[in-house]
Amino acid sequence: MKRDVPRRRQLTTEDYFVGVRDCDITVLPRALTLIESNNPEHQRQAETLLTRLLPYTGNAIRVGISGAPGAGKSTFIEALGLQLTAQGRRVAVLAVDPSSGISGGSILGDKTRMSRLAAEPNAYIRPSPSAGTLGGVASKTRESLLVCEAAGYEIVLVETVGVGQSETMVAEMTDCFLALMLPGAGDDLQGIKRGLLELVDVIAVNKADSATLKAAELAAHQYEMAIHSILGKQDHPPQVLTCSALHDQRVDAVWQAVQQRYTAMKSGGDLAAKRSRQQVRWLWAIIEDRMKQALRKHPGVRRIREGLESEVLAGSLPPEAAASKILQTFGMQEPCGI
Amino acid sequence: MKRDVPRRRQLTTEDYFVGVRDCDITVLPRALTLIESNNPEHQRQAETLLTRLLPYTGNAIRVGISGAPGAGKSTFIEALGLQLTAQGRRVAVLAVDPSSGISGGSILGDKTRMSRLAAEPNAYIRPSPSAGTLGGVASKTRESLLVCEAAGYEIVLVETVGVGQSETMVAEMTDCFLALMLPGAGDDLQGIKRGLLELVDVIAVNKADSATLKAAELAAHQYEMAIHSILGKQDHPPQVLTCSALHDQRVDAVWQAVQQRYTAMKSGGDLAAKRSRQQVRWLWAIIEDRMKQALRKHPGVRRIREGLESEVLAGSLPPEAAASKILQTFGMQEPCGI
Repeated sequence: MKRDVPRRRQLTTEDYFVGVRDCDITVLPRALTLIESNNPEHQRQAETLLTRLLPYTGNAIRVGISGAPGAGKSTFIEALGLQLTAQGRRVAVLAVDPSSGISGGSILGDKTRMSRLAAEPNAYIRPSPSAGTLGGVASKTRESLLVCEAAGYEIVLVETVGVGQSETMVAEMTDCFLALMLPGAGDDLQGIKRGLLELVDVIAVNKADSATLKAAELAAHQYEMAIHSILGKQDHPPQVLTCSALHDQRVDAVWQAVQQRYTAMKSGGDLAAKRSRQQVRWLWAIIEDRMKQALRKHPGVRRIREGLESEVLAGSLPPEAAASKILQTFGMQEPCGI
Repeated sequence: MKRDVPRRRQLTTEDYFVGVRDCDITVLPRALTLIESNNPEHQRQAETLLTRLLPYTGNAIRVGISGAPGAGKSTFIEALGLQLTAQGRRVAVLAVDPSSGISGGSILGDKTRMSRLAAEPNAYIRPSPSAGTLGGVASKTRESLLVCEAAGYEIVLVETVGVGQSETMVAEMTDCFLALMLPGAGDDLQGIKRGLLELVDVIAVNKADSATLKAAELAAHQYEMAIHSILGKQDHPPQVLTCSALHDQRVDAVWQAVQQRYTAMKSGGDLAAKRSRQQVRWLWAIIEDRMKQALRKHPGVRRIREGLESEVLAGSLPPEAAASKILQTFGMQEPCGI
């Protein structure tokens, strides 16, 4: 039963709850805006809402997708999303953009990048939250993922750019991780060293078409070899495929590889264990992130930090002594020693 | 001029300062014990001492040495140390043992492991500090390194076991990083994935003698290939060598490779820049570590953390809400939102 929800008046937690559960498309974006807000009152309400929604979460396949700028992430996600919605599945696309806080822009800010998918009633695309630290941005995306699950989305794709720390955080909120790579060989393998192989379930070398077909196949071969030499023998080594998102070729094969991995984890009981571990790690990551934010915003600390950093750089003050001064100013330390 | 320092009475900061600068071997160990103490009064005095010693630091070659248990770290360090002291050079050996806090033991606790080097008047061996978090242990080792420099040691070797985070922290306090590897191929390469290649300047495959000679050479070849395929073209790729610490073979060649790297960095001005960057990163690492310690030791937090973790694990409380409760208890957060 659809309730008549006022559009621009303030919503109660009950309004949000019912709207999300109904997947009311006028309420869902507002619930996500509430989640993303840094206003303390909104945050309180968001926590209450999330606690109420929690029993209805956990039913989606959560997939992280990373790729360097130009790797074709939007094209791939649109092609994949259109296939899935054509099968009647409901797909939400979220993002963690580490640059969104600085530039004000967002990798998914421009919905027109995926205009065809955005027009699908069974798809919902949300740009990256733009405020705060990477930890803060990622934490809000993780909460948004839960809200989308409670709204009944069966597949949640979380997009991020291929930069170390943001990939790790997306891997910490998803079940499977897909890395989109550019053909180009040699240079490509640079990406490997950033711990990517430890995160990734599927590597898809995109643009395996026309002039770059051979290069894509060569790159895929090199990834296979690198996986073998770096990871050694494994029960579930990352799978390597090629595809062409532009021509919609083998996108389905890539998705199949992701889904296979998910199904294997779920049937073996590994999925529940993985998600529980993720939850507790988030708890402490959030605490650390908030402590760092509080430190950074503290007026007294802001006044002295540059001067102390200069003294440390010049070698006239040991970092330990500078740390003590900053923590004293922050009010977290007795004159010395914790 | 040697001052007559009382052996067991409490030393003044001036006593410590003069004793360290004179490299008085009755004072140096006590100065390091002061540095390692968690007693707030000792910490205050240690900071004062360190600030006074700082102008006399920075003149040693700081070398990190990592290796898995059984890789032959002690044998290698003893062989190297004996060569260096035979050349009239003064060598200090420190350690960061991530397990020392838990077990009470220490990778260097047993000096008899390096009995010949320990007997050298130009060598000083100090076991790992045993208290606190890895960050705390590493921070104290870093301060001890500075004290050893102020005491005139020309070469400081910082030993650690081959575990990800402790290697990173040792790399953050040293100029060059040497990884000792076991022959054994295949399995060896597992070590590569832990970001080791990004830290390391020299890889030495030890035990290149008798029955394991061929295996060591093969492993060295595999590391070379892995470096090439993972790092691609670099100005200064890590050097790979084999040696036999037990038979004192090619230990000098390994040291030469380390020293070459150090000299290149120093003449190019990279060394000063690297050390400055390290200093400022230490400042913030120390702050984070102390904040985490304070949180962990807080009586209120200790009372509630297990219960909240269980609720998060069970999925009945979002990590964000649990984080807010912990931070409120810690007194760091207004009812909601920072």
